[in-house]
Amino acid sequence: MRKKLFIPGPTEVKSEVLEKMANPLISHRGKEASDLQRGISQKLQKLMYTHNEILLSTSSGSGLMEGAVRSCTRQRAAIFTCGAFGERWYEMAVANQVNADRFNVEYGQAITSEMVEQALKSGNYDLITITHNETSTGVMNPIEEIAKVVQKYPDVIFCVDTVSSLGGIKIPVDELGIDICITSSQKCLGLPPGISLCSISEKALLAAKEVKHRGVYFDLLRLYEYLVKKDYQYPSTPSLSHMFALDYQLDLILEEGLENRFQRHQIMADKVREWAKDNFSLFAEEKFASNTVTCVKNTNGFNFKKLNQRLAEKGFMISGGYGKLKDKTFRIAHMGDMTVQEVEELLTTIDEIMEQEG
Amino acid sequence: MRKKLFIPGPTEVKSEVLEKMANPLISHRGKEASDLQRGISQKLQKLMYTHNEILLSTSSGSGLMEGAVRSCTRQRAAIFTCGAFGERWYEMAVANQVNADRFNVEYGQAITSEMVEQALKSGNYDLITITHNETSTGVMNPIEEIAKVVQKYPDVIFCVDTVSSLGGIKIPVDELGIDICITSSQKCLGLPPGISLCSISEKALLAAKEVKHRGVYFDLLRLYEYLVKKDYQYPSTPSLSHMFALDYQLDLILEEGLENRFQRHQIMADKVREWAKDNFSLFAEEKFASNTVTCVKNTNGFNFKKLNQRLAEKGFMISGGYGKLKDKTFRIAHMGDMTVQEVEELLTTIDEIMEQEG
Repeated sequence: MRKKLFIPGPTEVKSEVLEKMANPLISHRGKEASDLQRGISQKLQKLMYTHNEILLSTSSGSGLMEGAVRSCTRQRAAIFTCGAFGERWYEMAVANQVNADRFNVEYGQAITSEMVEQALKSGNYDLITITHNETSTGVMNPIEEIAKVVQKYPDVIFCVDTVSSLGGIKIPVDELGIDICITSSQKCLGLPPGISLCSISEKALLAAKEVKHRGVYFDLLRLYEYLVKKDYQYPSTPSLSHMFALDYQLDLILEEGLENRFQRHQIMADKVREWAKDNFSLFAEEKFASNTVTCVKNTNGFNFKKLNQRLAEKGFMISGGYGKLKDKTFRIAHMGDMTVQEVEELLTTIDEIMEQEG
Repeated sequence: MRKKLFIPGPTEVKSEVLEKMANPLISHRGKEASDLQRGISQKLQKLMYTHNEILLSTSSGSGLMEGAVRSCTRQRAAIFTCGAFGERWYEMAVANQVNADRFNVEYGQAITSEMVEQALKSGNYDLITITHNETSTGVMNPIEEIAKVVQKYPDVIFCVDTVSSLGGIKIPVDELGIDICITSSQKCLGLPPGISLCSISEKALLAAKEVKHRGVYFDLLRLYEYLVKKDYQYPSTPSLSHMFALDYQLDLILEEGLENRFQRHQIMADKVREWAKDNFSLFAEEKFASNTVTCVKNTNGFNFKKLNQRLAEKGFMISGGYGKLKDKTFRIAHMGDMTVQEVEELLTTIDEIMEQEG
C-alpha cells in the first residue's frame, strides 16, 4: 500500500508535478535549456524575495552547503549548530581544510543572536553558517534577530541552510542580508529529491574570488560564471527532468500565493503542536518550534515502531528520531503541498491507533 | 516540434522509462530504498562485468570524476588527455590540490599504451585516469592495451571515465583491472541526466583511507561506508526518481542482451562512419573511432548551423563541435536505445538536405 509521506523529506509531490519528471528530454546546450533555467531563476527570486542570482545544482542540498563553506571562506568560518545538520556543515568545513570553529547549543535549543554577536565581534570570522530550520530537532532558529547582528559585520558572508524551511515560511533574503541561501527540492518546495539551489550575493562571489582551491563541481563561482557566460546554462549536464518539474511547481506555488502558502504552514504547525502537547511533549523549546516539522518528545514511552507499522497499514508514514534522538523522539513533517485536512486525518488516525493500543 | 536527440547526451529515453521518473516517492531511509539500490547495484555489476561494489551519486558524471581523483590519489596522479573531458579531469585535480601531471595527445589521436608505460615506469604515480571514450573528439582509446600496462603496476589506482561508452560497448571491469569505472545516466544507458555511478575496487577503497582531505559529497569512501552500514542507502537524499528509472531500464538492457546491445552499437557506428567518410571525413584516426559517437570533420565547409536548423524542422537534432573543435567538426551520437533504422533515417534526411542546399 502506498504511504502518504509525513516525513521531513521526501514530501508528497502532486501528480501533475510528477508527470513533468517524465517530459521527453532536450539538449542542455540549446536556447530551450537557457529559457528553462532563466525562468526558474526568476520565479525563485520571487519566492526568496531577492534580486541575487540563483544557482541550481544537480545534487542534494548537502552539495551546495559544502560548496558554500568551501568556496567563500577566506580566513575562518563560524559554524553554529543546534542539531545534526549544523554538525554536518562543520564536518564539511573540516573535510575541505576550511578553518572553522563550531558553536553548539544543546539539542532542542535555538541559536541565539547573542551567541552570534559574541563570536563575530572577535573579528576571527569572515563567514558564518546558520541552519534556519534544524530538521533533526524541530527547532526554527530566530533568523531575523540573528540577521540583525550579522548585518553589523559587512565583511562576513552570511550562509543559511533553509533546506527544510524555504517555501514553507517567509525568508526575505535581501532584507535579512543573506549572502547564500540554500535549499533543496524535496521538502517545502514539494518536489522529488535530486536538485538543490541557492541565491548568491555579489559579496559572496567576490569572496569566492579570493579563495584559491574551491574544487570544481560545487565551486559556486564557477556555477555563477558559467551561467553568465552561457546565458543560464549549467557546466555539466543537469537534471533537466527536475528542472521541468521545478519550473512547473513554482508556477503552482506562485498561483497559491506566497502568503497563503506560509499561512497554510502556520495552521498545520499549530495543529500538530497542539496535538503533540496534548499527548506527548515538544522536543524543541516552544517559542522556537518549527513551522514545517514537529519533533515530538516521546514522553509516555509509546512504541513508535509499532505506531508507524500501524500507520503504514492505513497509508501514512511519519518519521523516527534523527541520529542520537532516534529513540527519544519522533517527527511529523507538515510541509510542502500537504493540506490542513490531510494533517488532521493523520492526527486522527494516530489517536485511533493509540486508543486501540492503549 | 519535438526533436529526436542524436547528440552525445542527453540521448533519447524510452517513454516507458520516462514514466518511471514520475513514480510517487518513497522514504530514502526505509527497506524499500535499500532494496531498490541493492537491486540496481546487482544489475550494474552484470553490465560492468564486475564483482566490485557500485556507488551511486546524485550528480552528473563530473562529480564522480572529481571524487575519484580527490579521494584516491595518495601521492600523484597521471592524467591522460586526448580532448576536453580528459582536460576536465586535470582541472579537477588542480582545483582540489591533488598533485597531478597531464599527458596530452593531439585532438583526434588516441592515448597509447606506450605513453602510459613511459609515465608509470617513472614510479611517480599512484593513480591514473583515462577517458575511455572522448566525447569531444570521437576517439575511443585502446583500453585493453592500456589495461595490460597498468596491471603491471599493482600500486596504481586505475580510474576510467566511461561516461559516453558504458552500456554501448563491452567494458569488462574486473578483467581489465579497472579500480574505479565511472559512467552517467544520459548517454549509452538511455536515461535522463541527473545520476551517475561507479564501480570501486577494494584497492581503491584502501587508497582512499590514506587520503586525509577527501571532502564530503564526493568522498567515495564515505559513499561506500554508508552503503555498507545502512544496507545500500545514500548519505543524503538521493534522486529516487532516477533510481526508479535506472532500475527499470537495467531490466530492459539485460533483456535486450548485452552482446546484442553492443552489436547494435557496432552496426550503428559502422553506418555513420561509412556515411561520414563518403561525405566528409572522420576527425578521429579511424582505428580509434568511437562506437558511440562520430566526430565528423567538416571538410567540405558545409554550413552546420543551417544543417541543424533544417534537421530541427524534420524532428532531428545532431551536435556541433565541442570547445575548440566547434567550427571544424560536428558530431552524431549513436548510443543508448537508438535503433539502426533511426540512424539510417537520420543519415537519409541529412543527405536530402545536403542535396537541396547544394
